[in-house]
Amino acid sequence: MNKQQLFQQIQKKRSFLCVGLDTDILKIPKHLLNAADPVLAFNRKIIDATAKYAVAYKPNLAFYESLGWQGWHTLEKTVEYIKSKYPEIFLIADAKRGDIGNTSNLYARTFFEKLDFDAVTVAPYMGEDSVKPFMSYPEKWVILLALTSNKGAADFQYLKVEETGDQLFETVLKTSQNWGTTENMMYVVGATKAEKLKEIRQIVPDHFLLVPGVGAQGGSLQEVTKNGMNSQCGLLVNSSRGIIYASGASDFAKKAGEAAQTIQQEMEILLKANSVI
Amino acid sequence: MNKQQLFQQIQKKRSFLCVGLDTDILKIPKHLLNAADPVLAFNRKIIDATAKYAVAYKPNLAFYESLGWQGWHTLEKTVEYIKSKYPEIFLIADAKRGDIGNTSNLYARTFFEKLDFDAVTVAPYMGEDSVKPFMSYPEKWVILLALTSNKGAADFQYLKVEETGDQLFETVLKTSQNWGTTENMMYVVGATKAEKLKEIRQIVPDHFLLVPGVGAQGGSLQEVTKNGMNSQCGLLVNSSRGIIYASGASDFAKKAGEAAQTIQQEMEILLKANSVI
Repeated sequence: MNKQQLFQQIQKKRSFLCVGLDTDILKIPKHLLNAADPVLAFNRKIIDATAKYAVAYKPNLAFYESLGWQGWHTLEKTVEYIKSKYPEIFLIADAKRGDIGNTSNLYARTFFEKLDFDAVTVAPYMGEDSVKPFMSYPEKWVILLALTSNKGAADFQYLKVEETGDQLFETVLKTSQNWGTTENMMYVVGATKAEKLKEIRQIVPDHFLLVPGVGAQGGSLQEVTKNGMNSQCGLLVNSSRGIIYASGASDFAKKAGEAAQTIQQEMEILLKANSVI
Repeated sequence: MNKQQLFQQIQKKRSFLCVGLDTDILKIPKHLLNAADPVLAFNRKIIDATAKYAVAYKPNLAFYESLGWQGWHTLEKTVEYIKSKYPEIFLIADAKRGDIGNTSNLYARTFFEKLDFDAVTVAPYMGEDSVKPFMSYPEKWVILLALTSNKGAADFQYLKVEETGDQLFETVLKTSQNWGTTENMMYVVGATKAEKLKEIRQIVPDHFLLVPGVGAQGGSLQEVTKNGMNSQCGLLVNSSRGIIYASGASDFAKKAGEAAQTIQQEMEILLKANSVI
């Protein structure tokens, strides 16, 4: 999916919501455990209930891998379900991969050929050749970790680099802009650091930012929008637990849909207030 | 596996060789493609031919994931094969994972419970809470990326940190020492930077180092040993392509065994010269 198509979808759905499909088999309603593939059954219901309000889905690979090869099978079937039923959706593999060039090539092949994801999250530590293979596919995206929302972000991402005085995450943003374009690269920016978004927008005014951490991780949608929105929205804001576990009972899908709709309605107001729609 | 057991195996086999099971279905001998699981068939033969000379195996996950859920199934069967037939082997998942704490917990569960790996490679960018979950398992290990062997290592790992004057990879080594011990933590150090090993040994004198990049990636075993060996060896040196693709014909296993033996014999000389055995 290209940037224009993503923006069109945002305008049409009046939403920049990404739903995190971090499906934990220990947390899904008990009645689904009788299904042949409980996680897939859960995902389908969640997707059907929320697709009207979401522009993106983001399965985190850890949840699927923890179930072994069967979990990978469930992931593949989830991707197929979304791509066949909701082809307009932007689909992100939250995989945080990154390896030497030849090996990153294989990861890119996995997520863009074997599975039909639109984007993959990638860790920057190994530098350019670990990231570029993901950008050699037309209309596919790399989403590079810049500033994450967890406590450990402070360990290295905030370190000041001697030569420039920039913090490491700023250096990642600046250096990596030479690797791709606003058409094949986005950045992960944790919403718990909303005050940092203004700085980040000065470095990358036109890139899309994937913002996890609204909701359970503590960020505020208003703050994120105020500091991070640009004329083409430029934001995908993720919510996982607040939506997919809105209810643990048989009404889980209905409640997930309502939770997604609540966020979409707030997003619509913010998009209008910023003259994006 | 604990450190003492690993050292005993090094002494017994007179080797610190790790064989990288980076098995590419496009590169294995054609006659294996008729097997029900060609990659597993290849791995078994390679393992049987090299286990006498190797103390560790390291499948790189990218190669298995590129085959989808079937590839994960092959990985699981490869792990089972090694663990049942060669229980003394130290088994490394070269996965380069790392996510927020809760999610890293799931990755740890995957590699240490669902699969019976002894160690996982982990990327440091997200800091302490992304790494520590892997160290909560007794006798399991995290192998943290410090200095990698690829060109892109120069992009961020060599940056000087303003506060200390240390390079980023040195900061990773120093900071992360507070997270674990020499009994549950190792570091990845690329062999193409053998001259850096001396510096690294001053920071982490007692930790094991996993050294990729000897052979195809250009490092020298003598240089690595000279600068990196300590009294308990402290090194696992990986070779992948040079061993597993030593021959592309029907004699591939025999040739892989010979290639592994050649390295083991060189290692034996170096271990003796350094009074480790």
